[in-house]
Amino acid sequence: MTRVDAARLQRDLETLGAIGRHPGGGITRTAFSAEDAEARQWYQRECEKAGLDLELDGLGNMFVSIPGASGEVAGVWSGSHLDTVPNGGAYDGALGAVAALECLRRIRELGISTERPVRAVVFSDEEGNYGSLLGSLGLRAGYTAQQLGQLTGRDGDRLVDALAAWPWASGSPAETRLGESALAAFVELHIEQGPKLEASATDIGVVSSIVCLGGARLSFVGQADHAGTTPMLSRSDALVAASDFIARIPELAMAVSPNCVATCGFTHVHPGAANVVPGEVECSLDFRDPDLAVIEKLGRDLEAMARMTAERHGVTLLWAPSVTVPPVPMHGLVQRAVADAADELGLSRTSIASGAGHDSQNMAHLAPTGMIFVPSVGGRSHSPAEFTAWSDVTNGANVLLATVLRLAGRQPVSGRER
Amino acid sequence: MTRVDAARLQRDLETLGAIGRHPGGGITRTAFSAEDAEARQWYQRECEKAGLDLELDGLGNMFVSIPGASGEVAGVWSGSHLDTVPNGGAYDGALGAVAALECLRRIRELGISTERPVRAVVFSDEEGNYGSLLGSLGLRAGYTAQQLGQLTGRDGDRLVDALAAWPWASGSPAETRLGESALAAFVELHIEQGPKLEASATDIGVVSSIVCLGGARLSFVGQADHAGTTPMLSRSDALVAASDFIARIPELAMAVSPNCVATCGFTHVHPGAANVVPGEVECSLDFRDPDLAVIEKLGRDLEAMARMTAERHGVTLLWAPSVTVPPVPMHGLVQRAVADAADELGLSRTSIASGAGHDSQNMAHLAPTGMIFVPSVGGRSHSPAEFTAWSDVTNGANVLLATVLRLAGRQPVSGRER
Repeated sequence: MTRVDAARLQRDLETLGAIGRHPGGGITRTAFSAEDAEARQWYQRECEKAGLDLELDGLGNMFVSIPGASGEVAGVWSGSHLDTVPNGGAYDGALGAVAALECLRRIRELGISTERPVRAVVFSDEEGNYGSLLGSLGLRAGYTAQQLGQLTGRDGDRLVDALAAWPWASGSPAETRLGESALAAFVELHIEQGPKLEASATDIGVVSSIVCLGGARLSFVGQADHAGTTPMLSRSDALVAASDFIARIPELAMAVSPNCVATCGFTHVHPGAANVVPGEVECSLDFRDPDLAVIEKLGRDLEAMARMTAERHGVTLLWAPSVTVPPVPMHGLVQRAVADAADELGLSRTSIASGAGHDSQNMAHLAPTGMIFVPSVGGRSHSPAEFTAWSDVTNGANVLLATVLRLAGRQPVSGRER
Repeated sequence: MTRVDAARLQRDLETLGAIGRHPGGGITRTAFSAEDAEARQWYQRECEKAGLDLELDGLGNMFVSIPGASGEVAGVWSGSHLDTVPNGGAYDGALGAVAALECLRRIRELGISTERPVRAVVFSDEEGNYGSLLGSLGLRAGYTAQQLGQLTGRDGDRLVDALAAWPWASGSPAETRLGESALAAFVELHIEQGPKLEASATDIGVVSSIVCLGGARLSFVGQADHAGTTPMLSRSDALVAASDFIARIPELAMAVSPNCVATCGFTHVHPGAANVVPGEVECSLDFRDPDLAVIEKLGRDLEAMARMTAERHGVTLLWAPSVTVPPVPMHGLVQRAVADAADELGLSRTSIASGAGHDSQNMAHLAPTGMIFVPSVGGRSHSPAEFTAWSDVTNGANVLLATVLRLAGRQPVSGRER
């Protein structure tokens, strides 16, 4: 079987992992930052060294192809992203982006012919510095100029200004929407970012779906009072109420479904002084499950518990639900191709739902799409502790290459193959 | 009986209350700000108009006396502060500062003679922009130049720079410590900042003590993980643990003592993103009671509960206790004078502990000290909702004047009194 160049892939991940790395070990390569630019420059040079063609679009998505490949026939694409969360790790996004490039290099240097052209893609701003899954959502649905004008980054700068100064963008950011005919299939290699593959000592996760995502913003509104002079029974303490709610989230979630997760990721306490009884607490809620019905029940149950808790503490609840992102099933054709590739390579595999969002959930609206997961040590991700063994990196890339070749229709070996 | 000029006092509070007031109703007149300067300038002009002498010290404390009063004899002082918390109210500090000035004006214009000289004082930075009770602590204990060099304001600026540019300071800030012989007694009029006087329909609170203050900074340290990919049972969620603790604080406090209060005023959640399981949560703790033994038990019980809660949630607890500020009893002599003054004026009174800290707690280390409280509507303070009825303002100022005259030894009425 055709394999990737494992040493080259490792070298690439090490080189890329040094870009934006802090002394503390974490990597900050947020979208359209100087560090993202350095990563794009490195990626562009690697494409040039490998004799591959690089195209850009108006949102900074990058498309790599083998010279001479037909643009008429719908292609098989693979890719991921080069940007990271602040203080993130070296594998999330990077693995899938570099492995897709490695697949293209391998196909070109071995002179492999495929019925459909194979492309590698780097999506812009997957981690949502300006907008979550920014680049792939642009390919799927497009943005109006007005929508783009409203997007700002963590630092308050405007996306349109960032794009205007970005060397790896070309054309109008509002005109990135992809015709359905361009794409025959999409497959993305990614680290699991959870503990399940490692815990079950499984090499490869064949992703069945990207889970359904629900969320809300809550505010518990009580009354700010002097912490020294206001008797306990005279208080409307918003933080005590919010805390009573947050402490009960895990139990509620596990009662609804053993697979779901529910998280309060932040609280903002106002006025937030040691000697003032908190008058208002804002909280985030993020809950996920493969099943839309479970998400709907979680939303109802969490809201009911929040209302009861607020009432019990004599404070007011403001509940603002976020838009529910429905689950995105991975296509059976691609799941089958991934499973067969793993079997051929003698790797153990299991079906697994992705708890995280990925660019694949946008690509799935355009063509049959699937994902390949490899184990994350300790399930750690979005953290400097993110780690995947080189053997798993290589396994994942080999499964990706075999999957892409299956989906693209590898031609019988010709004399040109070296 | 001699009374204050209620109309003038009301006008003064209205004039002062317009300085630093936002359109939303709150007042921001933090120490050594432009708004504090405007208030000091107004105060200085009022002293000049009333023919009173104004002296300054190196920390910006202001001392007002009647011309010709002996500096040799230990005096009876009254006063409070002109600075506010951010977005505070019009009475906290202002009432006591303006009423003390009114007492001096009244004594001078009525030609009242006292055995001991009467002084009004404005303390610097009571609300702790640079240091809590900054000015009065300087009078009580002094600061070394090194200590002063380390104090910075909310905006990060250095106290020594602020003082160097402050027109109402004179001499070295390190040389403000007051000799014990300067002071015969101190009395401060203040709003209660709590709901007890209003709830019991009592005119005057004779303050028995300033409560003991305990505190701590806690950190619950778990592990930051992806909120979508980390199963509920694999998490070490620092916010769930912290919330479980905070929600139980009121019950624990009320079990220790019906009079005590305990507050978590802020939490800081790290990393604080909606889609990341919180890895660390810092919390403040502030607990108060008139009895030092109760504070010590509260400290022990809160720490034990925090440790148990952390253990139950599989996270680590870091507990850093703050220095305990012991209770400061008000002097029986001054309490007696306040009570007698209230009785003479036909006002109802009750003994009450102060849950808030005041400059009086520093002055109590220098001379017999007491405080007079008047009702706060709804117990609201440190808030634009802070409000005290004009009748209560007048009652408090009349009790202050009568108390000061008792303590200073009013001379028999002479022909000079108008």
